Order: sequence, then structure tokens, then C-alpha cells
Amino acid sequence: MENLGYYNGTYGLIEEMSIPMNDRVHFFGDGVYDATCSRNHVIYLIDEHIDRFFESCSLLEITCPCSKEELKQILNEMIQKVEGEELFVYWQVTRGTGPRKHAFLEGKANLWITITPMEFSDLTKRIRLTTMEDRRYEYCNIKTLNLIPSVLAAQKAAKEECFETVFHRGEIVTECAHSNVSILQNGCLKTHPNDCHILNGIAKRHLIKACNQLGIPVVEEAFTLKELKEADEIIVTSSSNFCLAADTLEGHKVGGKASELLTQLQQVLIKEFNEYCIEEKQLILK
Amino acid sequence: MENLGYYNGTYGLIEEMSIPMNDRVHFFGDGVYDATCSRNHVIYLIDEHIDRFFESCSLLEITCPCSKEELKQILNEMIQKVEGEELFVYWQVTRGTGPRKHAFLEGKANLWITITPMEFSDLTKRIRLTTMEDRRYEYCNIKTLNLIPSVLAAQKAAKEECFETVFHRGEIVTECAHSNVSILQNGCLKTHPNDCHILNGIAKRHLIKACNQLGIPVVEEAFTLKELKEADEIIVTSSSNFCLAADTLEGHKVGGKASELLTQLQQVLIKEFNEYCIEEKQLILK
Repeated sequence: MENLGYYNGTYGLIEEMSIPMNDRVHFFGDGVYDATCSRNHVIYLIDEHIDRFFESCSLLEITCPCSKEELKQILNEMIQKVEGEELFVYWQVTRGTGPRKHAFLEGKANLWITITPMEFSDLTKRIRLTTMEDRRYEYCNIKTLNLIPSVLAAQKAAKEECFETVFHRGEIVTECAHSNVSILQNGCLKTHPNDCHILNGIAKRHLIKACNQLGIPVVEEAFTLKELKEADEIIVTSSSNFCLAADTLEGHKVGGKASELLTQLQQVLIKEFNEYCIEEKQLILK
Repeated sequence: MENLGYYNGTYGLIEEMSIPMNDRVHFFGDGVYDATCSRNHVIYLIDEHIDRFFESCSLLEITCPCSKEELKQILNEMIQKVEGEELFVYWQVTRGTGPRKHAFLEGKANLWITITPMEFSDLTKRIRLTTMEDRRYEYCNIKTLNLIPSVLAAQKAAKEECFETVFHRGEIVTECAHSNVSILQNGCLKTHPNDCHILNGIAKRHLIKACNQLGIPVVEEAFTLKELKEADEIIVTSSSNFCLAADTLEGHKVGGKASELLTQLQQVLIKEFNEYCIEEKQLILK
């Protein structure tokens, strides 16, 4: 199939699937999600993503209708049925179905999955960035479906022909519309600490791991817009774009002053991805 | 019918209606809504609600697929088909249908409507309140479908057997999970000014109008938790609960020190509602 959708046990082409009007997501965006990519029908870092997903569920007191193992099995089965070398693997849970009412409903949560084709970005190509005041809520550590501010930020990026919008709370840089942002400065990586203002990014975690491996010191501290503008490199990470570097911020030249270090980091991350996909494939084929 | 749903021209019982999986509301909560009540198949303050709805659309750059007049006509037709003296009239627009992608989609937005039975609260019964830190975003002036923080606040209220949760940003009281909150103190009404931290409530607007009519001075200024606790009366307003007064806040006695003024306000608001429903009914019957 060219894509595959799932809703509470029903499968189909996403554009042919439908959802009950009383799913609470319709009125409150009341749900959480997670997503990763796959190559060769191997879902990258599936356990880390499922762990974070269950953590998001728990923070909003939503009970996922299946166990971690069951979810993993459904995802692994679905991924085999969709054509394409590289796929985007997305799943979410919404807090049940019933008449609109703010307080929680009794009854089971709904599990949704979509598997769609994707293309990885070329990591050697530098990206353009814009910025926007971060007026989001203080639940950004939870991967919820309340994403209007990110939609607005992504739209600003699209309009300005940028890849991403960097959010800042006053002078402090937090993250992007759908990525984390870090800087390389004087041979160190600086990145916002995990708190309620950013997502605990899995790609960011692996970027930090790559730094550790290469002996690059890592400082998990907030940095300013000024530091961003003056950084040796600005690095944008997400689960489908492991490590992109910027060359433009609001139309001005940025970064490009630590391209060797950047390339080393990218190589470690790509190697990790390739090895994971080969090793897991061997496990699956056994 | 006992209720009535609408989605892009299709009508049915809400629990039998379904929505395409690719409606953007599913992934981003990307939409805005408005709602009011009806009595005797007259929709209360329909023009004010439709105006605010179009304002919400405009603030998020969503183009409603119909005009104000067309929407009013659809709502007025639907309300005639549902049984019940008092109905909850709810509508929303979501930013189109298509593959998940943060930036805006081309293509038309989707219009949703639900008409369901409701019961008005007894205004003579005092309500219980609890409080919660306001960690919401700074788009609270827009009536969006990104309502998880309100869901959490409503759940806190339900758990503590309260009617509502009062949000506060630090010491400053903003509003409630799904209502505005104002206080009566020394014969004056004090209420948070309309900014990005609260919804420009239509019931609040009519409460202010009632104050003007009764010669009660109105101060649209932020007030503190301390002022809330010590207020002569705490008044909670929403489009389905015009003017409720609290007697308990976090388990402590509050208000009850200006009950005559409160009753006068409630009487003005009920009179306005009753007259509106009678006059509009006559217009409809003509």
C-alpha cells in the first residue's frame, strides 16, 4: 500500500478512513502523539519513542489502550505493509469518545497510527531559519496535539522560505516549531535544558550522545538570541532530520564557522542510524 | 431529533457522524469554535457569537467556508430540528483536510456544528471553586480547539467537586477553565481586561452592560488571588451560565457579602435573555 492508517483496530488507506465525530480530539485536541522514521522497514529508535509516548500519556493521565509491547508489534506489522524505502511512522492516542465536556470521560482512549512515505533531508545542505516570540503554554515537554502555535510558526517559516522558525521567550531561545535547536560555540555544544518550555527531543539526545563520543563538551543551558546569531554553528534536530545546520537567520548569514565539527557529528549520527537499521533488520529476519 | 450534527453539508445524529482521518484538527487541534445556548429554538446573541467566531478565524488566518449570514441560516435551520426547550449550539471550523504537515494547507476549511440538549444552572445556587496556576499560551483571546490546559483545569474542578477552576498567572487571576471570573468589591465590578490571557467573554460583556444599567462602576483591571479571596462576591460567567456566584474557594468560605447587588445583576441578565428569546421568536414567526 502507498500509506496505511489505523484507528482502534481498523486499517485502511488514510484518505479513506474516518473518525467518530465525538472523539474528544475534535473539541479539545485532547491527545498525545509520537513519531519517528523508518528505513528498510525498520523503525528507528522505536523503544525510545514508545517510552516517550507513554510518558506523554502519563503526564496527561491518558491510559493508552495497549501495552508498549503491543504498540510496538502493531507498528512493526504495519510498517511491512507500506511501500517505500523510507517511511514516517506516526501514532497518537486521544482521550476517548463521548459528548463534549471538558472534564475527563470514562471509557477507553483511542489509538491512531499513520504510516506515510517520507524523504530525508540532505544533511549537507544548509537551512534557512526565521524567529518568532514563543507564546506557547508551559506544557511543551508533553508531545500533545495542541499545536496551533507550532502551526503558526511553521507557516511563518514557509512564507519566508525557511526550513524552521526558532522560538524565543524574550531573549531566551527555546526550540523550533517542530525541532530542537542547539549551537556549537568554541568547540562546545549548548542546548536548552529539558523543562516545560521544550520537548525532550530524542534526536537532541542522540546529538548529545554523539558529542560525548567525539569528546565535545555539552552544556545544557539556555542561550540567547544574541548567542544564536553569533554561534559557530546553529544545529536543528528532529526525529526525521537528525542534524541540519543553518546558514541564514532572518536573512542574515549565520554559522559556518565549525563545519568540520559539524560534519563529524553528522557522520556519527548517520552511522548510528544505518547501523541500527541493519542490526534491527537482522533481528527481524531471524 | 434528540441532537443534530453537521460536517461540511452532511447532517446526522452526532454519534453516527464521522470525520475524514486527514482533517487537520486530528493532528494539530487546528481550528476555532464558538458556542451559545438557545431557548424555544431561538439562539441567544447569535450575531455577537458569529462575529466573535469570525474574529477567531481571522486571527488564525482560517477562512470560514461560508458567510456570517449563511452560517446564521444553517444554525437557525438546525435548531428547529432538535427537540428540547434548551439547547447548546456549538460550531467550529478546522483548517482543511490533507496529509499531516505543520504549515497551512491549500484548500477549504471544514465547518462543523453540533446541537445538543442542555440545562441551565440554577443561578440562586452558589458554586464551589478551586484554583490552578495558569500555564496556558498567550493566545487565550482566540477561541481555539487547543484546550488541554482547560481540560486539566476542568478535571481538577470535577475531582474536587467544584464547578470551576480559577486560573492565576502567579498572583494575577485571569479566568476559569471555560468561564470568565469577576469580583464585586465595595459596590464595584472588577474584571480582567481583554488581552491575550483571557477570552473576550460575551457573557462578561453583558454582565458589564448590566452593571452600567444599574449604575455599578466597572473597573477592567487585573486583580489578585488575595482580592479574589476577600471579594464581596465572586462572579463566574459563561455563555451557558450567565452569572453564577461562588461561596467556596479551595474549601474556604468566600463572597456572600453583596448578595442584593448580585441578585439585581442576575435579574437584569435573565430579563435580557427572556426578552431576547421572546422578541426573536416573534421575528422568526413573522
